Parts: sequence; C-alpha cells; structure tokens
Amino acid sequence: MEGRMVGVQYEEGAYRDLGWAKIDVGRPARTGTAEAVYAAGKTPAQVAGALAVLREAHPGRVAVATRCDEACAAAVRERFADEPVLVEAGVCAVGEFPVPESGAGPLAVVCAGTSDLPVAQEAVVTARANGLGVRLVPDVGVAGLHRLLDKLPELREAVCVIVVAGMDGALPSVVAGLVSAPVVAVPTSVGYGAAFGGLAPLLTMLNSCSPGVTVVNIDNGFGAAMAAARILNVKAER
Amino acid sequence: MEGRMVGVQYEEGAYRDLGWAKIDVGRPARTGTAEAVYAAGKTPAQVAGALAVLREAHPGRVAVATRCDEACAAAVRERFADEPVLVEAGVCAVGEFPVPESGAGPLAVVCAGTSDLPVAQEAVVTARANGLGVRLVPDVGVAGLHRLLDKLPELREAVCVIVVAGMDGALPSVVAGLVSAPVVAVPTSVGYGAAFGGLAPLLTMLNSCSPGVTVVNIDNGFGAAMAAARILNVKAER
Amino acid sequence: MEGRMVGVQYEEGAYRDLGWAKIDVGRPARTGTAEAVYAAGKTPAQVAGALAVLREAHPGRVAVATRCDEACAAAVRERFADEPVLVEAGVCAVGEFPVPESGAGPLAVVCAGTSDLPVAQEAVVTARANGLGVRLVPDVGVAGLHRLLDKLPELREAVCVIVVAGMDGALPSVVAGLVSAPVVAVPTSVGYGAAFGGLAPLLTMLNSCSPGVTVVNIDNGFGAAMAAARILNVKAER
Amino acid sequence: MEGRMVGVQYEEGAYRDLGWAKIDVGRPARTGTAEAVYAAGKTPAQVAGALAVLREAHPGRVAVATRCDEACAAAVRERFADEPVLVEAGVCAVGEFPVPESGAGPLAVVCAGTSDLPVAQEAVVTARANGLGVRLVPDVGVAGLHRLLDKLPELREAVCVIVVAGMDGALPSVVAGLVSAPVVAVPTSVGYGAAFGGLAPLLTMLNSCSPGVTVVNIDNGFGAAMAAARILNVKAER
Amino acid sequence: MEGRMVGVQYEEGAYRDLGWAKIDVGRPARTGTAEAVYAAGKTPAQVAGALAVLREAHPGRVAVATRCDEACAAAVRERFADEPVLVEAGVCAVGEFPVPESGAGPLAVVCAGTSDLPVAQEAVVTARANGLGVRLVPDVGVAGLHRLLDKLPELREAVCVIVVAGMDGALPSVVAGLVSAPVVAVPTSVGYGAAFGGLAPLLTMLNSCSPGVTVVNIDNGFGAAMAAARILNVKAER
Amino acid sequence: MEGRMVGVQYEEGAYRDLGWAKIDVGRPARTGTAEAVYAAGKTPAQVAGALAVLREAHPGRVAVATRCDEACAAAVRERFADEPVLVEAGVCAVGEFPVPESGAGPLAVVCAGTSDLPVAQEAVVTARANGLGVRLVPDVGVAGLHRLLDKLPELREAVCVIVVAGMDGALPSVVAGLVSAPVVAVPTSVGYGAAFGGLAPLLTMLNSCSPGVTVVNIDNGFGAAMAAARILNVKAER
Amino acid sequence: MEGRMVGVQYEEGAYRDLGWAKIDVGRPARTGTAEAVYAAGKTPAQVAGALAVLREAHPGRVAVATRCDEACAAAVRERFADEPVLVEAGVCAVGEFPVPESGAGPLAVVCAGTSDLPVAQEAVVTARANGLGVRLVPDVGVAGLHRLLDKLPELREAVCVIVVAGMDGALPSVVAGLVSAPVVAVPTSVGYGAAFGGLAPLLTMLNSCSPGVTVVNIDNGFGAAMAAARILNVKAER
Amino acid sequence: MEGRMVGVQYEEGAYRDLGWAKIDVGRPARTGTAEAVYAAGKTPAQVAGALAVLREAHPGRVAVATRCDEACAAAVRERFADEPVLVEAGVCAVGEFPVPESGAGPLAVVCAGTSDLPVAQEAVVTARANGLGVRLVPDVGVAGLHRLLDKLPELREAVCVIVVAGMDGALPSVVAGLVSAPVVAVPTSVGYGAAFGGLAPLLTMLNSCSPGVTVVNIDNGFGAAMAAARILNVKAER
Repeated sequence: MEGRMVGVQYEEGAYRDLGWAKIDVGRPARTGTAEAVYAAGKTPAQVAGALAVLREAHPGRVAVATRCDEACAAAVRERFADEPVLVEAGVCAVGEFPVPESGAGPLAVVCAGTSDLPVAQEAVVTARANGLGVRLVPDVGVAGLHRLLDKLPELREAVCVIVVAGMDGALPSVVAGLVSAPVVAVPTSVGYGAAFGGLAPLLTMLNSCSPGVTVVNIDNGFGAAMAAARILNVKAER
Repeated sequence: MEGRMVGVQYEEGAYRDLGWAKIDVGRPARTGTAEAVYAAGKTPAQVAGALAVLREAHPGRVAVATRCDEACAAAVRERFADEPVLVEAGVCAVGEFPVPESGAGPLAVVCAGTSDLPVAQEAVVTARANGLGVRLVPDVGVAGLHRLLDKLPELREAVCVIVVAGMDGALPSVVAGLVSAPVVAVPTSVGYGAAFGGLAPLLTMLNSCSPGVTVVNIDNGFGAAMAAARILNVKAER
Repeated sequence: MEGRMVGVQYEEGAYRDLGWAKIDVGRPARTGTAEAVYAAGKTPAQVAGALAVLREAHPGRVAVATRCDEACAAAVRERFADEPVLVEAGVCAVGEFPVPESGAGPLAVVCAGTSDLPVAQEAVVTARANGLGVRLVPDVGVAGLHRLLDKLPELREAVCVIVVAGMDGALPSVVAGLVSAPVVAVPTSVGYGAAFGGLAPLLTMLNSCSPGVTVVNIDNGFGAAMAAARILNVKAER
Repeated sequence: MEGRMVGVQYEEGAYRDLGWAKIDVGRPARTGTAEAVYAAGKTPAQVAGALAVLREAHPGRVAVATRCDEACAAAVRERFADEPVLVEAGVCAVGEFPVPESGAGPLAVVCAGTSDLPVAQEAVVTARANGLGVRLVPDVGVAGLHRLLDKLPELREAVCVIVVAGMDGALPSVVAGLVSAPVVAVPTSVGYGAAFGGLAPLLTMLNSCSPGVTVVNIDNGFGAAMAAARILNVKAER
Repeated sequence: MEGRMVGVQYEEGAYRDLGWAKIDVGRPARTGTAEAVYAAGKTPAQVAGALAVLREAHPGRVAVATRCDEACAAAVRERFADEPVLVEAGVCAVGEFPVPESGAGPLAVVCAGTSDLPVAQEAVVTARANGLGVRLVPDVGVAGLHRLLDKLPELREAVCVIVVAGMDGALPSVVAGLVSAPVVAVPTSVGYGAAFGGLAPLLTMLNSCSPGVTVVNIDNGFGAAMAAARILNVKAER
Repeated sequence: MEGRMVGVQYEEGAYRDLGWAKIDVGRPARTGTAEAVYAAGKTPAQVAGALAVLREAHPGRVAVATRCDEACAAAVRERFADEPVLVEAGVCAVGEFPVPESGAGPLAVVCAGTSDLPVAQEAVVTARANGLGVRLVPDVGVAGLHRLLDKLPELREAVCVIVVAGMDGALPSVVAGLVSAPVVAVPTSVGYGAAFGGLAPLLTMLNSCSPGVTVVNIDNGFGAAMAAARILNVKAER
Repeated sequence: MEGRMVGVQYEEGAYRDLGWAKIDVGRPARTGTAEAVYAAGKTPAQVAGALAVLREAHPGRVAVATRCDEACAAAVRERFADEPVLVEAGVCAVGEFPVPESGAGPLAVVCAGTSDLPVAQEAVVTARANGLGVRLVPDVGVAGLHRLLDKLPELREAVCVIVVAGMDGALPSVVAGLVSAPVVAVPTSVGYGAAFGGLAPLLTMLNSCSPGVTVVNIDNGFGAAMAAARILNVKAER
Repeated sequence: MEGRMVGVQYEEGAYRDLGWAKIDVGRPARTGTAEAVYAAGKTPAQVAGALAVLREAHPGRVAVATRCDEACAAAVRERFADEPVLVEAGVCAVGEFPVPESGAGPLAVVCAGTSDLPVAQEAVVTARANGLGVRLVPDVGVAGLHRLLDKLPELREAVCVIVVAGMDGALPSVVAGLVSAPVVAVPTSVGYGAAFGGLAPLLTMLNSCSPGVTVVNIDNGFGAAMAAARILNVKAER
C-alpha cells in the first residue's frame, strides 16, 4: 500500500509501556488534562506504580487515582511518603495542589442531598487537582426549594456548575432554568428500589426540560470534573 | 366442604351480563365511583352499549368511556342523541355534569408543558364527571420556575393536586415541597428518545425526594382523577 | 434585572445550615409534616445530629430517621438517653408518640405476606409518629382470598388504606375493588428471580385494573405513610 | 467415527420438504398434536400451501394457521372452498371440528377484561380444533370480584383452566387460589403505558403467589391451548 | 346494601391466625395441595412455628418450607426432633414421605447442566413431599445432544416433564418437540453476565418454538413441582 | 407565616400567559438563550402563535421551533410571510440569522454516518440561530479512521465539539482522546435491532473511556447546540 | 508538538468526499471487503450515488446496499441500467457475481423457521456478492429435531455456519454441539410479545451452552455474512 | 412408529455417566475441542473429578476448568499432584501445554484497559490449552489512540483477533476497521454505574459500525477463545 499516512503525531515516549499497562503520558498535550488511574480492578502496587509514572512524566501536575480502597490508599501513602498525598472520597491525589481549598472559584458543585456528598467530593477533589477553584453547595434538593433559591446569587457567579443528585434527579433541571452557565449533571446511585442503582436520575437528567443540561455516568464525579476542566479551559485559553 | 362463606355481599343484579361483558353496576355501592368503559380494543357499538347499561343503572351519574377514537365518539353521539354528550381528550361523557366548568374547586390539575395537556384534560373531564370542581394550571414546568411560584397561592388553596409531566417529570417533587395537599403524579409519554415512552418521568416520580407523592400509570389522567375522587371523598364523607 | 420577585416565603431560620446539611425546619409550615432523616449513606453521628436539630425545631413532633442500621440506632439511643426512642423496622423515632398503639384508627396497613411485614411496619411507625391511628392487617394475600374477605368489614371502616405486597403485587387491585377509601400501594422486593427486586409488583400496581390505586417506590413504607398523612389531613383540615 | 447412533426414530416422509419449508408431519406421532402454521411473515400462498400439506398428511385433524390477516384468510378460504373453514381471532382452521361449540367441556378459558377477548378466542379456537371441549368465561377481572366468585362453581368443574389477563395480570393468582386444576396464565398486551406491551402482566403471572401457575408468552392464546391439550392428554391417555 | 353474597365457602377455622401470619389450612380442600412456608424473610422460630401449624392441621401430609438457610434448618430439626425431617436444596420437609425415592414415577425432572441441580432438587423434594414419584435426569444439555437422545425412551414414559435450564435455556424446546407430555420449564440464574440472573433462559422458554411449553419463575423448582402436582391430579382424579 | 421570601426576581411580564401556555420570555435574562417551541404534540396554529410571542418579545433573536412536521412548517411560513424563515431538519427558525453559514466558527459538529445527518443538522441550525459559527464534519465514523484523522487539524481548531453517532456510538470517545475542547455527545436512533432506538450509543457515550465527554438525549441535536451555547458563552462573557 | 506520527497509511484518494458522505474506498485494502451502503435514512439518489462511487473504485467487486425499500431499488435499477442488478431481501447488488448460485460452497446458512428467511437471504446475497459459495438450509428448528439431524452430513461439510433464528433462538446451541466449524448466530425479530423485537433470541445466543458460538446484531444477516467473509479469508489466505 | 432413525452417531461410551453429571467425552470428535468444566456452582471435588474423567478420556489434551475459586484450585492441585497444573485468571488447566508461552502466534488478544486483563487472560490460557499460539496486547484503549496505532503492524499479522473491552466497548469497532482478520469482541463488566454490569459494551459491540465483528457473552474470555479455536481450525484443516 503506497500512500500518505494520517494519524496522531506525538513525542517519542508519549506512552510508557509497563508491560501490563501503557501509561498515556502524552495526554496533557492532546487533551489538556493528564490521565488518571482508575483503581478498581488493579492491585495497590499497580496503582502506586502508575501514579509514579505520572508524577515523573508531569512533575508540575497532581497525579490522581480514583476509586481507591483503603489498601490502595495505604500503598500510595507509603510510596509517596515524601510528597503531599490527599485521600478523600476514594481519590488519591499526589502532589501540591495548584489552588487553595478556598471555597471559591469559577466552578460550583451543587448536590441535592447529603447522601450524594461522596460523589460531589470526588468531583471537588478532581477539579482542584486539575487547577480549578471550586465552591461546594450541599443539600439544596428541590423538596425545600428555599434552600436553593437562597444560594442563587452564589450559583449565578459560577462559570460552570456541576449538579449532583440521586433519587428523582430533579435538581439539574431547576438549576439550569436559573443560571446561564453550562450545567453538567451527575446522577447518583442513592435511592430506594425503583432508582435502580441510579437509572432513575440518569434518565431524568437526560430528559431535562431545561435546554443545555449535559450528563455524565452514574456516580461519576470524576468525569463531571474533567468535563468542567475542558469547559473552563475554553475560558482560560483566550 | 361444610362451613361458613365469606365474600362480597351485593344486591341481586349487581352486574349486568351482556355475554361478552359483565358490567359491574354494583361498583358505586362498593367503591364510591362508577365503572368507566375502556374503549381501546372494543367496537364502537360495544362502547355505546356498555355506556347505555351504565346510564340505565345509574341515572344520576355521568357515564364515561375513555380512550375513544372518532368512530367511537360518533357512535356514542348517535346512540345518545337526546342527552348531553361531552367529547374531549378521548373521553366520551354522557349525562348532565354535576358541577359547572368553573375553573375552581378542591382539585387542581397542574401540567408541566403544553404537550402534556391532553393527559391533563383526561383528568379534568373524568374528575368533573365524578362531581369534582377542578382548576387547570397549565405550562408551569420547572425550566421557568417563576411561572409555578406565581401560581403558588392558587395551588395552596387546592385540597388535592394532580401533577402531569413528561420529559424529566421533575414538577411533582417541586410542587409537593410547597403544598400540604396530597399530590398524585402522572407521567406522560411526551419526550425525546431516552424518555422511553414515559418510563423516565415515571421513575422520576416514584423516586420523588418530596415525601408523600404517589404515582399512577403513564398517560393515565383518568386514573389520577379516580384517585382524587377517592381522596376528596375522605373529606366529603365527614 | 429590575422587577418583581416570586418565590417561597419563609420565616428567618427556616433551614438550619450544618455545613454538610441544610435541615429544612420550615417543612411543617409548608407541607404539614416534618422532614425525616434518610440514614442510608450518613454516619451515625450525622443522623443523631440531624435528629437533634429536628427535635429542637419542632418540640411537639416526633423526630424520625429511616433506614437506620444498628450502629445508627445505638448512636440515636445514646444521644437521646432522656427521651423516648422507638426503634423498629429500621426507623428511629425520638419523642412521645401522639397516638397510642391501639390497633385502630383511620389508616389501615394491609400486607400480602409475612415477608412483607418489615415494609408494612415502616409504614406503621412512620404513620404513628405523624399522629395517625393505624391498624395492621397482615398476611391476607390473594392465594387464600377468604382471609381478606374475612377482614373486609374492618377494611371498610378505614379512611385510607395502604396495601403492601411483593411477588405478584395483586392485592391492591383486589382491595381497591372492595373499598371506597384511597388505596396507596407499596411494592416490596420480596420474591423469586423474575420479581427483579420489586419491579414486578411495581408494574402490577401501576397497571391496576381497579381505578384510583396510586403507587409509591419499592419497599417505601415511609413514603406511603407520608402520602396517607397528606390524605388524612384532607379530612382533618375541615 | 465408529459407533452407535442415538436419535429420533421417524417414519419415512415424516417431514415434507417444500424447499422453503419442511412441514413436520411427524409431530402428532411424537407430541400428540399437529404442527400449526404461524402466518406472520409468510405470504398468503405459503400459508395456504402449508395448510394443504397438513390436511393431506392428517386427514382426520383440523389444520390450523394463527396470526392470519385478511389477505391470508381470503387465500385460505379460496384454496379450501370445498371444506369447512373457520376464521376467528386471526386463526384459520380447515376441516370439521371434532367437538361442537357447546360451551362446555374440560377446559375453561377465563378472561379478565373484554379487551382481552381476542387472545382468549385464539385459545378457544385452537383448543376446539385439537378436540377439546371449552367453556369461555369473559370479563371477570378482580376489580369486581363478585363476578368471578359467581362463576366459581363452574370454574371448579373444569379439569384445566386458562386465564387471560392484561393490565395488572392479577386474575390467575386469584383463580389458582380457588381451584385445584392446572392454571395456564396468558398475559396480554392490553393496557396503559407502563404495561410495556404486556411485560407487566407477564411478570405478575411469573411471580404468582399461588403455587402451580404456569405462564406462556404475551398474547399467546395458541400456546396456552396447546399446553392445555398436553395436560388434558394426561387424563385421556388412561 | 341488601342482597346476595357470593364468596368462598370454607370450614370454620380454615385459617389459623398467629397474629403475624394467617396460615391457610383450608388450602388442600380448595387447591389439592397444602400451603408451604416461604422461609426467606422469616425468623427460624417463625418457620418452625408455621410448620407446626401445618403438621397439626394436616397430619397425613408432609409439611414443607422452602428457601431455608442453615439456622432455619437447625430450628426445624430441633422443633421436630421426633419426626422425620428431610433437608435438601433449601427445603425442610417434616413428616413421612408418601412415596419412596425410587427414581421412578410419572414425573421426570430433567436438567441441562450440573449447576442447575439445586433447582432441580428443590423440584424433586417438593414433588415427592406432595406424593409424586419422580425420576431425575441430570446433565443432558443440548451441547451434547446424544446424552438427551439416549434418555429419550425414559422421558417418553413420563406423564409430566419438568425441564430445568440456565444459560441459553434451550433444553425445554428440544424436549417438548420429542415428547407428548406437558412440559413445565424452569429457568435458572446460572450463567455468565448476559444471562442477567436468569432473564435470558426465562425469555428463551417463554418464546419456545415448541408449542405447549409453560414456564415458571427463575430458580422456582418449587413452583414447577406444584404445577406438576396440579397436572398429575388431572390424571389422579379420574 | 411571617418571614422572608427567596425566589426568582424577574421583570413584570416575564412570561406571557396564552391560557394554554405560559411563554417564558424572561429566559434570556436568566439563562442567556431564548425558549424554543417544542412542536411535537402542538397544533400548527399553536406553534406559529408561540413563535409570534417570541418574535415580539425578543426582536433581536431568531425564534426557533423544533420537531416541526410539514403542516407546522407551512403554518409558520404563512404566519411570517414577511420575515426570513428557515426550515431544515424539522427546525423552523424565524428571523435574520446573526452569523453567516460560513462553515467556520468555534463550534464543530461531527457525525459518524450519513444517516446521523438530520440530527447533526438540527444541532447546526439551532446553534446558528443562537449566534454560533458552526462547521459540519460529516461521515467520519471509526470504521474508516483515516477520514477522522484527516480532519483532525480542523477539529483541533474548534472551541467546542458536538459529536453525533448512532449504532456503536464509538466516535465521541475517539474524538475526546484527540482534542482538548469540551465534547458534547449525541446518540442517535440509527441502527439495527439491538440499538434499541438509540439506547446502545447512549450507554456507550455515558461510559466513554475518554474523560470529560458529556451526553444529551437520543436524537437531541437541539439540546447539544444549547449546551454548546452555554459553553461558548463562557468564552464570550470575558 | 514535535515527534513521530503513528496512524493509518493509505493511498491518496482512499476516501471519496461527496460533501455529505466520505466513501471509504480504501476499505478492501485494509479489511479485505468493500464498504456497503446502509440505505436506511438515505435518499434513493444518495444510495445510487454511493453505489456508483463504489463501482468505479472497485470495478472487480459487486457493490452492495442493504435495507433498500422499493423506491431505492428503482433508483438503483435506473442508475445501473446497463449492469446486472440483483434485488433480494432488501439488498441491491450491482455487478457480476463472482460465484454461481450453486447451492454449494464453504458457507452454510441455516434458519430455524420460514419467517426467518428474509434475514437468512440477506446473509446469502451478501456472502455471494463477496465471493463466497453458499448453501441455504431452511426450516430446521428444534421443535422437529429430525429435520436438522437429517441435514447433519451436509452441515458438517461446511467450513463456516451461519445460524438464523427468532423466538427461542435455540438452534445455534444445538448446531454448535454437532459441528466443528465456526458458528455465527443471528437473532431475528420474529416472535410473540416476549421476544421483545429479537431481544430473547439475542440473549439465548449470547448465553449458548455450546462453546464457540459468536453473535451479531438482531436481523443482521449482512453482518453475519461479513464475519463469514473474514473467517473464510483465514482459509483463503493460506 | 416404524421408520428410519436420524441422530448423532457416536462411539460407545461417548459420555461418561457420573450420576450427577454426564461428561461429554465425544465432543472433540464432533466439535474439534474438548468439554471444559464450568466450576461455578460445583464443589471442588466435583471439579477435580470431572477434570480426571477428561484427562483419562483425552490424554493428549489439556483439561480445563473455568471460574475456579481458591478452594477449587487447591483441590485440583492436590488431585493432580503429579501433573503440570496452571492456575490463572480462574482457569485451572491440567496437562502439558502444546504450545510455549511465546507471545507470538496466529491469535492476538487485545484489551482496552488494564482492568480488563483478567478476562483477556482467561482467553489467553484457554486458547493456549487448546493449542493456539497467542500474543497479548494490553491497554490500547481508544482514549489514547496512538498506543493502538503503534501496535497495528503486530495486529495485522494475526490471523484472528480477540478484542476485550469494558466501559464504552469502542475498541472492537476501531480494530475491525484496521485489520482483515475475524474480530471476536468480548465485553467486560468493568465500568461505572451505567455500564450495567457489561450491558453497555455488549450493546456497543453488537452495534459495531465495522462489519464483521461478532460478540460473545460478558466477561466470557473462555468463549472467545473457543470461537477462535473454531476459526483457526478453518485454516488448520486445509
């Protein structure tokens, strides 16, 4: 076959081959954010090893692993005894955070109920590790609408809003009708039987009557934060 | 088998056997409301015939058939040429309505979007045929919350509220957080693909974060009105 | 934006901000019943703390948490060592119950099988905590119809009926054909494989051939009782 | 491969190869009943041709095709102009029926609502074509239980009972709790949205709390009659 | 309401009210078989207590509880120390079995794979407790058809056949094409991911291309045996 | 209830009450984009009437109705005979477009197959009506990857990318691994049976292995464009 | 970004850009078979135009479009008036077929019922257009096993077997237990309600107890033939 | 019944009857590969016993059991203390492997993420036990496409490719667009909530836009390897 080649141009060594894994260290150059380690189904040693590759490849970035259990967190803490390690909501983040936990910034993470907090916190930690200032607004579900309306001025200051909700998943529709920022909705697996592990709020959010709501996977606070990073980069790149 | 018999006591003739159907004319005595004819799958002549049995058995009640197509409505109008016949939203109602279409009364029927109106109107006609005063509050979906909040004083006057919504089905949760009346939620089949014919708002409503919302079948305005009749009888029977 | 404001009027302090939670202490004024704590996904300390806010805000009401495990119940008992605490069917209720456990009253809670009892009891405790007199009618499933028919006089005295059933979920249709009171149906997750965690009886109940049945979420005895409270308030408010 | 052969012994010519079809004329010898033609997806000529093979192979049996539309029925009537042809409920039956339409016999076909009648009639015609005496008991749904209880003596005379129901599908559970005969349940696609084309009553019936109910496919009156033929052969073969 | 009463006639005492349960001791008179105790969701003491009521009410019958765990079995063995107790496949059966475990009789229980054996054994024990002679034919799945064909003469002797299969659930269609007896199909939850807990073989069996197959719930060996008891009573009652 | 009011501040007249509808003319002030008319389930006259309200309220904006059939488009053309009307992909857009159809701009709309084009075009028209410059990149599905890679430089220029795909829905994952812009994925209902009306690509996109993909409803090109408008406003508002 | 490029090497012009479509004429070089036109959702002119590109690019190959309706077939016949055009089972094939319709060859296409024939024929035509000799074995469903066993010698001669079945989808498991060739299973949408448009046989086939069965989409005879072409190329390439 | 017999010819003793199991030792003669033991639901002793029958029947083949837990593996190791036993990814393989673990050969097993490795390894071990040379290509998911493109030359050497992927399941479509070999796709249960235990990638793969992809059950590495064995036998048998 003679001809031209189209493809992906990349620096030599744009992935590190560990045999069992190929760490995609070229990702920041292509997508603006680094690869994160999905710890589920990996051994603690594998997670720590992958984080070490990321730390070495991107010294200026926080290396992140999600869905870590305690054994995994312990392995990470041991491996990076000399570096700052934050463990919260199943996320292990290694490295100095670029932004303080100020409770302010362009990203608002809103959640409907207190049982949705772990997912919201996965979003918060991921966002902060990627350099975004975040404010968290918990427990403003629509059963008591005055709580949300009370926080409206604050929400309207945000440049991007992540809305986390289980059960009926109604909150993103209400929020998106009140603000002009992009709204990224995260359904959670919180709820009684007919929530079917998050299917109910997922469908609610996909069917939002407020135009412009977009949706990520159930309990995927990480993915919502990564979408917010892409969106806020829109602003940043100017 | 010698022994005692437990069962359902009823007047002789408490059902009329038409061969192909057994009209349950004893239902008002047992449940407080008359049987209605479900027209889907019946011939126009069968529908008209069943309505005639109901008219004869309960002269003081409006006889109701739901899910009527035009051929069915024509047959009903012809059969009952000398009686008042109302045809609306697929409902054929034969007989003088006990309450005027005043736009007031103990029952509020609220709907989220204008595409939900046919289902809301099935509820309104059924309720009025069963003697309930009804006010209809259309197009107050949560994407523009001020519309609903503007109508809040009116909603708080209602003794029972039916909330009809398709797409995200978020409205019943919001309403139930603002009023003390019983809220009967009706999902509709209105919406884009992932509404799955009304499954999405059905699940939303079953998972309402506002306690006390109850739910009927998709597009079942009739059933919601019948539940409202039972609920408002609670008040009436004192 | 100059203009008018519509919204929710509330007393100052109508929610208590605990940082991680916003307890909606204005709910009784709006909806007639107090917020309950959904314990799943909360720490025992959080549950006890939220109950304390509710006790303080509404001294005349029983504070309720649902879906409590043993650790949670222990924390509640310790926190409220000087107050009456009832723990049953996963419900922790703090405070003096307004009605005795008389086995009588306007609400009947009927269940199909003995395996449905925990859900029925969640309904009973919740209802009593909200001031409703309740009678429990267990194990009257349709496989032995004479058991139900034997209790029919008793059921016909009730002003509202909650019907709890797993497996085929057939009982609410039968009951609603025999009484005039509102029937709130609760599907349970009891059953063999094709019950799919309560999906089967949920669909059965939504498709009830007896008009006027309304449905709550799977295993949601709490929600059924809250709906009954709204319905019985219809009577009470006259 | 040297060795023994196990398999199905059959008369030479136990299937007729039409090129596009292989009519299984050996089926009565193996299973006690003849093959029926499933007309959906076949041309009228193919249906008539297949029936002709069956008529020729089994002169003493009624040849049956199910799910016939009008064009198909016309082709059958034309092809068998000299033979008795019964067309009802989508079934074309060619040949003299072995039993009169007496309304009596060992098989009872019960249906919940009048909209379920076409499915019930498919069962009745199929059963009669296979030599079973049938009585049809229509419109005895559980919303008006006295209609069913009124027919109980008649039902208890039946040796096998087919119960046809859409919507909540509750009737088979109630019937099976009252009779000792085998109960074959047929869900129908009749109902509002959340019946999901018959899924709701199908699940209801599979989860029947009355032991011993068995279930066939949605709207499959034919299959229920064929099961009844196998069951009643149990009696016949003594 | 003046009138007639229709209902279920039963001997005084046709159910025993234990407060938390109403044991339906009139069931043999109505349906030919006794109530069985569904142990899931009951305490060991409740199971043993219910069995005691059944033993006392029907001294000539074996009292059966299904889905018993070890604690439950221990409680049963202790309570009935002086009586024969059989514990197998989660069934506790108290009393002398009416038929020996001969491996012969009118009922054949066939299973596709060895992983389906527990469900098949639930059927075998239940059937024997109800007086049916049973032969078990294990591991004749369609991947090695000669195993089934080798057993065909034996299967053709059976008056009723229960076929148990997981995974593809193909066996009942094959068996029903080879025998004339009624075939009751039992899907099991055995299989890889897309078996979805037994949904795959359940649908297979409902869609059997062999007419006359009927189906019970997933893993419901008990229900299949109860259906067989009804079917074989057809023969017995002559 | 004495107290404070929280709520939504809006100009007098921020919705127009047409009796059957409440047009939310305050939406641009709150959310940055105008309400669009969802034509499904409305009469042509209603659609035209609602567009007229929008035109009058926001003279500087293009008024948009989606899901219009031909009758609806005709009514719109007649009503707005003196204004520019664009009808494409079911969208009726009334008013002068703020940006030329240049095939350039900050938004790229990519689609996998030519059968996905109508959905992509709904997105393009909606986006242009809201003032966004759009380039359309059709038929770059992953079965022939060189087509996509050939367009990569163009895609990398976009500030926001909408990716439309049916069948396997694989394209958004591939695109999001190659660009840093936000990726909004739109599943379509294009495909063979197991696409289940778009469910398959919907799930694919929600499970994207490329972090930061967000998803809208099936066939919802409109919603994707509205999300893009919110995202690109992030940039614009600086 | 300086570095290396990986990608897909292709001849200049390896796709033809028609503006609305990019015909992948480089596909034979990469995958061994040419692109086919999926006609659903395209205009007749688009289908004919795309076929013309394919004919021109690959003069030695038959150009194929699937899922063509009559208007589409007419347009193809008109466009290619001078070339052989075969229209069958929704397939339009333009060009001289490389193999005669001999009814022999390395590929066997087996189908369970006559209603499955259109899907089987889509497979046959596609396979022949790609140069494969095919024999079709219709109507050998498992309800009459002797028909299949009678054809076993013929099946064992095939190098690859496609098995097409609706309803219970049991046939591939039986075939795969009897032959050593690769078995590609195609579920069809033929069947009663609980076949759910082909979901039932799809799940059956995915759960086959015979190891080595692989599955394609519902009604996807085309895809099965393309898989067979890849498999038979394994042989050919030696 | 006089006549002919069709069936499966087999050597005497082509299955070994263990009472609870019938080991199909005739399978290699019919299908080219030996039966494997599915350990789930069997006791360790049963697994070891079945393997012993297979070892004895086919001394030249490796005997394989899948889905073994540790107790099972221990029993196997003990029983076959004198033979080579490989335990990996839940597979116990007894006997000398016919091919070395060279990392080369006609079969490539590709996986998208490192969490999919156990399923890929089940495929690798099964394939090697059946005499296939295998190379494993891990962690080449589409989020970093250059990793896959870098391995393209290697993939193009393979005669058959197994592609294992969870989450979006997009990899098989991309691979099948780049190679001409048969592609067998294996969805895994790896992923967030809306992967629904592997349903998402399963549907993705069934809907692949690259013609010729075939699919096996979720997590079924074993089945994919068995399909590959059938496919590669196509080549071998020449």
